[in-house]
Amino acid sequence: MRIQYWYSFLGMAFAIPAMAQQTESLVPYVKPLTGTARMGHTYPGATVPFGMVQLSPDTDTLSYEQNGQYNKDVYRYCAGYQYADKTIVGFSHTHFNGTGHSDLGDFLIMPTTGALQLNPGTADKPESGYRSAFSHDNETAEAGYYKVKLDDHHITAELTTTPRVGIHRYTFPAADQAHIILDLVHGIYNYPDKNVWTYVRVVNDTLITGYRQTNGWARTRTEYFALSFSKPFKNYGCENSSARQVYRGFWRKFNQNANFPELAGKQLKLFFDFAITQGEQVMLKMALSPVSMDGALRNLRAEAGNWNFDGYKNAAQQAWENELHRVEIFTPDKATKEVFYTSLYHTFINPTVYMDVDGSYKGLDQNVHKADGFVNYTTFSLWDTYRALHPFFNLIQPARNADMIRSMLAHYDQTSLHMLPIWSHYANENWCMTGYHSVSLIADAVVKGNASFDANKALDACIVTASNRWYEGVGDYTDKGYVPEDKSGASVSKTLEYAYDDWAIAQMARKLNRPAVYDSFMRRAAYYKNVFDASTGFMRPRLSNGSFKKEFDPLDTEGQGFIEGNAWNYSLYVPQDPGSMIELMGGKKRFVAHLDSLFTMHLPDKYFEHTEDITRDGIIGNYVHGNEPSHHVAYLYNWAGAPAKTQERVRMILKHQYHTGADGLGGNDDCGQMSAWYIFSTLGFYPVAPGSEDYAIGSPAIEKAVLHLENGNTFTVEAQNQSDKNVYVKKMLLNGQPYTKTAISHADIVKGGSLVFVMSNKP
Amino acid sequence: MRIQYWYSFLGMAFAIPAMAQQTESLVPYVKPLTGTARMGHTYPGATVPFGMVQLSPDTDTLSYEQNGQYNKDVYRYCAGYQYADKTIVGFSHTHFNGTGHSDLGDFLIMPTTGALQLNPGTADKPESGYRSAFSHDNETAEAGYYKVKLDDHHITAELTTTPRVGIHRYTFPAADQAHIILDLVHGIYNYPDKNVWTYVRVVNDTLITGYRQTNGWARTRTEYFALSFSKPFKNYGCENSSARQVYRGFWRKFNQNANFPELAGKQLKLFFDFAITQGEQVMLKMALSPVSMDGALRNLRAEAGNWNFDGYKNAAQQAWENELHRVEIFTPDKATKEVFYTSLYHTFINPTVYMDVDGSYKGLDQNVHKADGFVNYTTFSLWDTYRALHPFFNLIQPARNADMIRSMLAHYDQTSLHMLPIWSHYANENWCMTGYHSVSLIADAVVKGNASFDANKALDACIVTASNRWYEGVGDYTDKGYVPEDKSGASVSKTLEYAYDDWAIAQMARKLNRPAVYDSFMRRAAYYKNVFDASTGFMRPRLSNGSFKKEFDPLDTEGQGFIEGNAWNYSLYVPQDPGSMIELMGGKKRFVAHLDSLFTMHLPDKYFEHTEDITRDGIIGNYVHGNEPSHHVAYLYNWAGAPAKTQERVRMILKHQYHTGADGLGGNDDCGQMSAWYIFSTLGFYPVAPGSEDYAIGSPAIEKAVLHLENGNTFTVEAQNQSDKNVYVKKMLLNGQPYTKTAISHADIVKGGSLVFVMSNKP
Repeated sequence: MRIQYWYSFLGMAFAIPAMAQQTESLVPYVKPLTGTARMGHTYPGATVPFGMVQLSPDTDTLSYEQNGQYNKDVYRYCAGYQYADKTIVGFSHTHFNGTGHSDLGDFLIMPTTGALQLNPGTADKPESGYRSAFSHDNETAEAGYYKVKLDDHHITAELTTTPRVGIHRYTFPAADQAHIILDLVHGIYNYPDKNVWTYVRVVNDTLITGYRQTNGWARTRTEYFALSFSKPFKNYGCENSSARQVYRGFWRKFNQNANFPELAGKQLKLFFDFAITQGEQVMLKMALSPVSMDGALRNLRAEAGNWNFDGYKNAAQQAWENELHRVEIFTPDKATKEVFYTSLYHTFINPTVYMDVDGSYKGLDQNVHKADGFVNYTTFSLWDTYRALHPFFNLIQPARNADMIRSMLAHYDQTSLHMLPIWSHYANENWCMTGYHSVSLIADAVVKGNASFDANKALDACIVTASNRWYEGVGDYTDKGYVPEDKSGASVSKTLEYAYDDWAIAQMARKLNRPAVYDSFMRRAAYYKNVFDASTGFMRPRLSNGSFKKEFDPLDTEGQGFIEGNAWNYSLYVPQDPGSMIELMGGKKRFVAHLDSLFTMHLPDKYFEHTEDITRDGIIGNYVHGNEPSHHVAYLYNWAGAPAKTQERVRMILKHQYHTGADGLGGNDDCGQMSAWYIFSTLGFYPVAPGSEDYAIGSPAIEKAVLHLENGNTFTVEAQNQSDKNVYVKKMLLNGQPYTKTAISHADIVKGGSLVFVMSNKP
Repeated sequence: MRIQYWYSFLGMAFAIPAMAQQTESLVPYVKPLTGTARMGHTYPGATVPFGMVQLSPDTDTLSYEQNGQYNKDVYRYCAGYQYADKTIVGFSHTHFNGTGHSDLGDFLIMPTTGALQLNPGTADKPESGYRSAFSHDNETAEAGYYKVKLDDHHITAELTTTPRVGIHRYTFPAADQAHIILDLVHGIYNYPDKNVWTYVRVVNDTLITGYRQTNGWARTRTEYFALSFSKPFKNYGCENSSARQVYRGFWRKFNQNANFPELAGKQLKLFFDFAITQGEQVMLKMALSPVSMDGALRNLRAEAGNWNFDGYKNAAQQAWENELHRVEIFTPDKATKEVFYTSLYHTFINPTVYMDVDGSYKGLDQNVHKADGFVNYTTFSLWDTYRALHPFFNLIQPARNADMIRSMLAHYDQTSLHMLPIWSHYANENWCMTGYHSVSLIADAVVKGNASFDANKALDACIVTASNRWYEGVGDYTDKGYVPEDKSGASVSKTLEYAYDDWAIAQMARKLNRPAVYDSFMRRAAYYKNVFDASTGFMRPRLSNGSFKKEFDPLDTEGQGFIEGNAWNYSLYVPQDPGSMIELMGGKKRFVAHLDSLFTMHLPDKYFEHTEDITRDGIIGNYVHGNEPSHHVAYLYNWAGAPAKTQERVRMILKHQYHTGADGLGGNDDCGQMSAWYIFSTLGFYPVAPGSEDYAIGSPAIEKAVLHLENGNTFTVEAQNQSDKNVYVKKMLLNGQPYTKTAISHADIVKGGSLVFVMSNKP
């Protein structure tokens, strides 16, 4: 067992707090198939917490384009897997968890029997290619372990991982021919020109190295591998389906398609033939690296030195036990425990480690860097995750969260653009969504005292990021106090989000005693008022000339000045100052009624049709939980003097929006943001405005929870008398003393202690 | 002056022997324009000895393909420059010297005035693009320095280099617009899909980094750069002429064509705009690296820290002075001196250094390696250069030659193919031509006592290389004693060359006391006999069934079992045992008559038409000097008891095949092989069989030469009474003692001393 060894590379040695007795195993409550149907976009395969390898079955390989048109169906395959599918194409090694756009799917492996086939075939005719039919009856998905029977090939496939190595075990039937396919053309969100280049080197009869370079969502991304087989192949070959190479000296002299060990081209697929006996198990280990084949080989040797599959599986599951035990909940309801620990599992997947065991990683400048005293992470879906996921990490994974911020600061140092990340993955910025929410993460860490990085330097980076006039209307925002819709679309979303981000910068500046910065950004934090249209009561797009845009439908999300939300939802996005917003909107009474309408009105179908990444289930009335802009909305009743309504709405959302089962998520999990909302809300509090020290009080949905904090303290939440009906907070005791506020501070939690809720069925 | 500093990176600190007084400057005798017309394939630009940067004007950018067909004209542009051309496209940073195939041409820079143009335009209409007309009247080419007036732009361009940095100085006219173009699409032997990827990062307003990745003659090659301007540009932009990128988040948000600092795509061209005044000089420094942009930046800073153009030029020319002074010749004939030192210049260009200042280089396995105690070189045109260039290095540059061998052994360690290089460049094997002549270089170094590498390990590598049954008929060669033409074309060339190579391996084994290896390879060394057809008196292709191939025309080079030579020339290729070959061919008398016919017969035009890489001037009778297989042939008279005929023929070849002037070379210079033949023959001796300790005596063509050897000794050759008519050796004195052999040993030379020839006009 090398678990101790590879844990140190993940920066976990210092990050695991003192645990409870661990009497109960929590891994059995994790259901990785949750969210794999429709729009959840989770993947069911094996990974370790924040692991660099995400080894998971892909059930289809649709192209981004079909007949020259965008193929909308490709969107369903963001995680490579759809529960309703009947076939598996193979097992690839990189996947996002729950994103609303995608990439990756590197290095597909598929074991087959029978005649060699090098194309995947189609879902309706799996026999037309190497893919295989499968049944969920023969499928097991656990945290760190996945197993499935490949019906067409009569092969049982088992998968587990270390942080950087995917481990496969294939149990073969008796068969004249047994192959293992390595398909470098396969990918998620693929299209014919996505592969820029592929390279494979057959080092010897058990070791292969290579890389795949793509121009995808990440504009210029290269992933390297080292692949080791447990037994020698007897034969191998290649197919390069790319256009011919003009210089053909190679081809004139050698047949590169058979047993030729050095291969390069745009579209390589390889096969390896094995002599097998009935029931024989062949294992393979696929190590990844962001920097080189040598790096992948180093990772392979450091993390996966033996062929004990069960040992790797046990280590992976023990890693999950350790992480899951950071939050122990007590409830007699098994389903709740399953949803809770599945959510916790989903929060501990992204961001992922992005460096070799020796600390080498690819930087935004496309140079190789060495992480100096931190673990480098990638996959920052920040527009989603700044809301609750990173605040959750800031509470329960503060060491990792600080390293994530150091990774973002490295990004800042390495880009020529003077920008902290917007949505970044694999040494690339993909610019997805709006705002500059890196500043929120950094402010939250600084304000809550978790800044193991240089906080003043980080504040400088935030200021520069927020001052790039060329970025998405920031110049006009700075000059006019709002983004004009005629200059930059989704202008209201941008204005509101910039204002919140600017407030977060101000909070950080206050903490760091930089009053001029504080004043300047607090001024900007009030710019949300500039897009409020008193005549309609909504935030509404304005034009350069100062007037509001004429055409305006507050129920629509298309072309109305918003992104992933209509005016009804987005107009409530002033988390930095709900009190003033409520005044703006006509005072508390009117506001409560307005919120009630949001949750109860009917959203006609025509407004829903444009929304591609949530299902109808992701909506309650006109409140959209499947997208993020409203995630704080249920808590706003607190500011309007109606905390019981917060309690009631939160419980309703918890109950209706989260289940286990493949269709358990109403929208993309968004790299753990949806799950983090669930966890906070289940515990009874929520970070409405990251960068503030306070969490808003909601309604705890379990009997008891113990938070094991990294500082060694524990904080216990108890909900006496809670049930599906007893959702209202009658009274609270903080460390035994009556507590009447509708918020609790971060400091009160991390110093340890207990918060007791006494619940009731009456508001 | 940082010359001392960068010299140490080139491994020159230890390689420069004690020099003569250096009273006479030799650089003025070097005429870099020699060989730039027609088939010489030399380039006229600036480089330092064995420098990583070869900065030279390209006069055209023909595509390898035209309308889907191979474009034969592209062959003329192997070095990017044809003397007859009237326009210059720009200045690129990597060039081969005199090759018969090509690649490279990386990072074209072109300064322009007037309206911005981003396409090169055509030769007949230079005003249609950024290229410019020029005149040879306004062109100066010196060792380490090149200058030209760009007529269309009224710009004077000057170029010089350090080992890893190209230095440009542009003197501008008064102009409203001044641009510097950086074209990453441009390349030599280009074709539309040759670019795999390009990347550019504008770090600040004077510094750019990037790379260009190509699939060319080198199948998978990436070259990195760091470009520094002497003054800030005021504006910049880009054109990406590749197919659209599917994921367009970047493009939706930003216009990457104007002042956007992070660019990636398949076909990038950039421009930088400058505000200039009349007569203003703008300099730029372009550093290269085989491994990374960081590496290029390190090279830039280490080698080119200031903006003193004349300082760089002086350092480059001093480097040439030092190298040229290794061989001092004394002759009243200025033309001879020019040919000699131009030849010496051409021998000291390839192979080129291929590592960063910190020793990092890309290996054959596409990983980054660090050269441990040696300088890593690339561009091994071994089928050409094993004959005379490397033996010349082994005599006059033994430290470098040993490092070149260490580079080849690193190649061997890094490839999965268990092969020493065949024709390798830039971390790729291109498999050009026949044989496995690496073994010849290694044997020559071992036998002559210049093995600073592990000689036994090197011998093992030679044995493995010669035993790869899959390589070009080696299996059959091993089994049958010849390569059957029906199994592998050019079978006679292969059989003859393998037999010679095997003899070389045997010599090394004898020196290293490994008698079993010696015996085994000496057996193979006699396999040349198996392709001799007594009925025709020529070497002739045999088939698998043992019979000779029926159709056979000993004058033809196409489909006759040979490559770059007909049976007349190639049948004489038994350098390891001319005596036995002469017996086989009917004895000395018959052989002399046969050789005489070779030199005097007329080769009908129809046999010449297929030969694409030499001009008619490269032929004397049917003796082809422009290709290499006959390079030893004039010396064979020595073995037939007719040394006077060797003397006569050698002088004839020297006189007719070598001149200065653009058309001074009758065929490709072949990375210095043609030039090395000239130097050896001018000095009066030649290495007929590398791997032997002996040089065959010819006829010295100068009055006196002093070889300054690295061991500190000097060896003087004197030719008393020599003239164009006095080409015959009447008598010789070695260190004052009469000497009557037709060969002189390497040991006799390197221990120092003198060899005096007394010449006469009678045989």
